[in-house]
Amino acid sequence: MASLVLCGVSRSGRTAARLFMPYCRSDVPNAMTSYFSLKKAHLTGTLLSRTRCFSHTTCRKFMSHLAKANTQSGRSRKRMFIAAGAAILAGYVTGVMHFLKAEMTSVSVGDDEEEDDILQKCKGFMSMPVTDVKLLRQKKGETSTRMEMLIMETQAAFCRALEEVDGGKFKVDRWERDEGGGGVSCVLQDGEVFEKAGVNVSVVFGHLTEEAAKQMRSRGKTLKGVDGKLPFRAMGVSSVIHPKNPHIPTVHFNYRYFEIEEADGSKQWWFGGGTDLTPVYIDQADIVHFHSTLKEACDKHHPKFYAKFKKWCDEYFFIRHRGESRGIGGIFFDDLDSPSQKEVFAFVKSCAETVVPCYLPIVRKHLNDTFTSQEKDWQQVRRGRYVEFNLVYDRGVKFGLATPGSRIESILMSLPLTARWVHDRPQ
Amino acid sequence: MASLVLCGVSRSGRTAARLFMPYCRSDVPNAMTSYFSLKKAHLTGTLLSRTRCFSHTTCRKFMSHLAKANTQSGRSRKRMFIAAGAAILAGYVTGVMHFLKAEMTSVSVGDDEEEDDILQKCKGFMSMPVTDVKLLRQKKGETSTRMEMLIMETQAAFCRALEEVDGGKFKVDRWERDEGGGGVSCVLQDGEVFEKAGVNVSVVFGHLTEEAAKQMRSRGKTLKGVDGKLPFRAMGVSSVIHPKNPHIPTVHFNYRYFEIEEADGSKQWWFGGGTDLTPVYIDQADIVHFHSTLKEACDKHHPKFYAKFKKWCDEYFFIRHRGESRGIGGIFFDDLDSPSQKEVFAFVKSCAETVVPCYLPIVRKHLNDTFTSQEKDWQQVRRGRYVEFNLVYDRGVKFGLATPGSRIESILMSLPLTARWVHDRPQ
Repeated sequence: MASLVLCGVSRSGRTAARLFMPYCRSDVPNAMTSYFSLKKAHLTGTLLSRTRCFSHTTCRKFMSHLAKANTQSGRSRKRMFIAAGAAILAGYVTGVMHFLKAEMTSVSVGDDEEEDDILQKCKGFMSMPVTDVKLLRQKKGETSTRMEMLIMETQAAFCRALEEVDGGKFKVDRWERDEGGGGVSCVLQDGEVFEKAGVNVSVVFGHLTEEAAKQMRSRGKTLKGVDGKLPFRAMGVSSVIHPKNPHIPTVHFNYRYFEIEEADGSKQWWFGGGTDLTPVYIDQADIVHFHSTLKEACDKHHPKFYAKFKKWCDEYFFIRHRGESRGIGGIFFDDLDSPSQKEVFAFVKSCAETVVPCYLPIVRKHLNDTFTSQEKDWQQVRRGRYVEFNLVYDRGVKFGLATPGSRIESILMSLPLTARWVHDRPQ
Repeated sequence: MASLVLCGVSRSGRTAARLFMPYCRSDVPNAMTSYFSLKKAHLTGTLLSRTRCFSHTTCRKFMSHLAKANTQSGRSRKRMFIAAGAAILAGYVTGVMHFLKAEMTSVSVGDDEEEDDILQKCKGFMSMPVTDVKLLRQKKGETSTRMEMLIMETQAAFCRALEEVDGGKFKVDRWERDEGGGGVSCVLQDGEVFEKAGVNVSVVFGHLTEEAAKQMRSRGKTLKGVDGKLPFRAMGVSSVIHPKNPHIPTVHFNYRYFEIEEADGSKQWWFGGGTDLTPVYIDQADIVHFHSTLKEACDKHHPKFYAKFKKWCDEYFFIRHRGESRGIGGIFFDDLDSPSQKEVFAFVKSCAETVVPCYLPIVRKHLNDTFTSQEKDWQQVRRGRYVEFNLVYDRGVKFGLATPGSRIESILMSLPLTARWVHDRPQ
């Protein structure tokens, strides 16, 4: 059985290889040879099952043999994964995510405050921003304004790039939220290239419910409100793209900002986000391109960001009941709140500006790849796994579904147009 | 907009109408007329959205306009549903299910202990039972033996009936569980009539984990184990049938028995179960047939069973985030532990023997119904809702996915072969 590590062989030779070497296993060359032999031999749905991807930091498998794992070793491995998953979650909610606070203080970030006219920029967006432009111009220097402009820009840049490839147009739906704020949902469905492409922006404000406040506290935040009420403002851009061709991977990204006001008037704030890739069939060069593009964006801000956020991504996008990773990872972070708003915003900006160069070259490369009905079928099975992760584990989806007044259509936009669950399918 | 109540017009006239009248709204005739007019006019996916089913006891809608419910009234209704759902769940785990204990003591149930030879019966099963036949014969009179025989009989009777209609054969997979026990999974996939038909039996034993024991306690059970360990034995039959033709509804049933031994050697035991129907298009006569068959089975054991368990079913199979019922209901009960094992077993036996007469006449009736691609598409959207309920709310699935060593393929057998999520589809 071949095993594959997410490193080693690169499309551009030595430079990219060096980039990834710290995360390589020592048995790369042999594993890679076996992998490529297999890839040529198996252009059917059985490929991924015979090929495992390991992340050095987590040793997680990407696609499992779980359905047939009735041997003792199979079960032990599964239990190990489940235990690891539980431990990760426990750590996740008790504050281990603060590891980078001290380190980031040493990073120098350039001040790139937008000086362009906000109104001019808005003309290029998919819709006018959620916040009134007059207000945005008044509060030009504030982080919430800069973030709202960034998420609108990211949405527009990504949608335009996808439209250019697909030939279709996004349907733009601007909506308002009774409790405060609203959003802009862009969907391109059943296009030439994309089965379902959704790019959402939301900017919401109001007061935190007790449940939400409790959730914050359990994540290491001490928040004191007036009469239990905590005014908040949250915004973000999120996207999931499910292409038709099984050789073009699914991509997901999300960048968000949260601020909350305590009883004494002081503000708590933090950023979160990430970008990750879920291929149906693995193309090693795609993975190297995707990860190296993300690494480059991270490295501008902190030498440890890429490694730490890559590990976090592997841990988060893990389908525990299957013992499988959702995809081949990327980066993921949450609760990033130091050393300063300016510096963390600059990092998030770099990440958001990376979604087009991360994904579009991969889409273009596989645009005309031919595929068989077996490959399409395997894509549908993998889509089923995507649904399982999103409905069972994704924190954003779970929180959204449990929150009264949520916009269900936007929350579930991440689900594919079609999915398939085949009982006891040979993997 | 037409509204439909699950009562009133019956296939056999006055008798069935009388059966259902206690649960009818007063405006039945008009509602029904409107409904039938609509049904004739709309053989497309728009039908269910224009038609609402209300259960008198819960006033729940079956298929909603949620995606477009941006009016204040829409939102208020949704909140009401969500609040109701939360209250139901809260009640569910804190012991309100014991309402029937005292009442059932007055019910007279015949002693129908199986006297036939167990070995002879086993020959008709899909596979030999999980427990060794010798042991079953030794413990012939015990409830766990009688229940194991019942679930094997139910599996065989249902599978044979489906095979006869479909022409295909169930694939039988007998599996063992390292920790104790095992099961028999029967699947007919991609048949002539059935897209995916799964009928599972499992008989498992061992010791309860602390998490599981805690869950029991929160449901009103006081359980004391030796060194925190509680020996248990659980068994059940469960099935979900997804037909190909959108005019044949999906059916689900599950009947289960649980016993647990406390430190002093005393046994706690209880039964649970239910049968419910999820049509893609509503056929009023089918609904009347389904509910009246269930009511007949319930009425033999307690005059209040049908009404109470129908209400429980409506409350349980409710997709809170959509504000929609999963289907048109049936019966559902849990934690039924009085007045005696014999009496509750007799009730469960009646229910289990009802699954074939409940469902098969509906399958046969629609076997040759023609359907359009639009109707098939709407079926796929409704399948998506089924996936949402099963992955987000179903207690059995959630418990299974979170339990190490679970057999994921059997737990997720309830998912359809194919499903579809269309963004902002007109309902």
